[in-house]
Amino acid sequence: MVTHNVIRFSTDTRQQVIDITARVEQALEKSKLADGMVLIFVVGSTGALSTIEFEPGLQQDFPELMQQMIPAEKEYRHNRTWGDGNGHSHLRATLLGPALTVPVVDGRLVLGTWQQIVFLEFDNRPRERRLMLQFIGEASEA
Amino acid sequence: MVTHNVIRFSTDTRQQVIDITARVEQALEKSKLADGMVLIFVVGSTGALSTIEFEPGLQQDFPELMQQMIPAEKEYRHNRTWGDGNGHSHLRATLLGPALTVPVVDGRLVLGTWQQIVFLEFDNRPRERRLMLQFIGEASEA
Amino acid sequence: MVTHNVIRFSTDTRQQVIDITARVEQALEKSKLADGMVLIFVVGSTGALSTIEFEPGLQQDFPELMQQMIPAEKEYRHNRTWGDGNGHSHLRATLLGPALTVPVVDGRLVLGTWQQIVFLEFDNRPRERRLMLQFIGEASEA
Repeated sequence: MVTHNVIRFSTDTRQQVIDITARVEQALEKSKLADGMVLIFVVGSTGALSTIEFEPGLQQDFPELMQQMIPAEKEYRHNRTWGDGNGHSHLRATLLGPALTVPVVDGRLVLGTWQQIVFLEFDNRPRERRLMLQFIGEASEA
Repeated sequence: MVTHNVIRFSTDTRQQVIDITARVEQALEKSKLADGMVLIFVVGSTGALSTIEFEPGLQQDFPELMQQMIPAEKEYRHNRTWGDGNGHSHLRATLLGPALTVPVVDGRLVLGTWQQIVFLEFDNRPRERRLMLQFIGEASEA
Repeated sequence: MVTHNVIRFSTDTRQQVIDITARVEQALEKSKLADGMVLIFVVGSTGALSTIEFEPGLQQDFPELMQQMIPAEKEYRHNRTWGDGNGHSHLRATLLGPALTVPVVDGRLVLGTWQQIVFLEFDNRPRERRLMLQFIGEASEA
């Protein structure tokens, strides 16, 4: 079976690390997938996906790491072209990547106890975000 | 259905960010996949895949970021072992990763308007590149 | 067909780059998958997956790169919260990502000659590691 779903949400730039695990679980339940995988994909070029232990310390540590590695205020050629000042957003998104695939076994996401699926918002303005979820595998018999 | 295809192209080191979206779309059309996903995979250890807004500014910003994070001229142990001077190429490729999976819905890649699939050439000499594309899902009925 | 398998192994922190290619090949053979893909996923938030040319130089270069980009001794907010001193481990794992998908054609992993699948151990203490392998595609007819 193959079935897709779309997750939508609004973001602002003060909260870069957003836990989407519950939203993916809800979509998984609706999909009736029993065994297989779910591909989560950021439609857009200034956000990314990964997993993290979603606790307040790391929620600040990770954006600080990004700011140190790819500073927002540096002058990128992208900014000269477009004037929207988000060259750093694009570079961070390309580095982290738009796709995450998570295994599904017995109708559940396979994740560690302290491992959450997160959307990483890198843009410098509030955005309406859209994630495509593609479920592939065997459906539950019920 | 499962079907694969191989994309081949030549690269040089002056152009690190290479838009392969049209090539993937052509292979998708040929595959007859309607709904599912395409896994794109770099066969080799000095290139990587991601998505980016493919415009001239970022095409220079991204290689500059790589050079700042993982300088080409630094002395890596790999270079002492092999003498080919591409330790930075391997490290960049491992950091970015060889695989990208993109959802397919209604026979089309699900991508943002300003989001292209790119091959990242990190090697320090021209290469003949080979990408494996693996399509999985439901075929179109036509 | 969809079938999963679990790979388990012990790690210590002196060896960060661990070649798991042979373990994945063994699980692939057992799975009877002929064409499709294998999703490899780190269950946990302080390890990651990628590919690399698994030679002694890069086995040291890569951990040195991580230490330069995300130093272990820096004071992260995560460390103040939990006191386990592994904030750097979490950040490195989120940056690299927990998932790797590798194409399978004719019952074999599609990899370059000098390209191995590696588990990246980022934690600061020995761990019992668990990787979920999810195989999807067409079974061999035999």
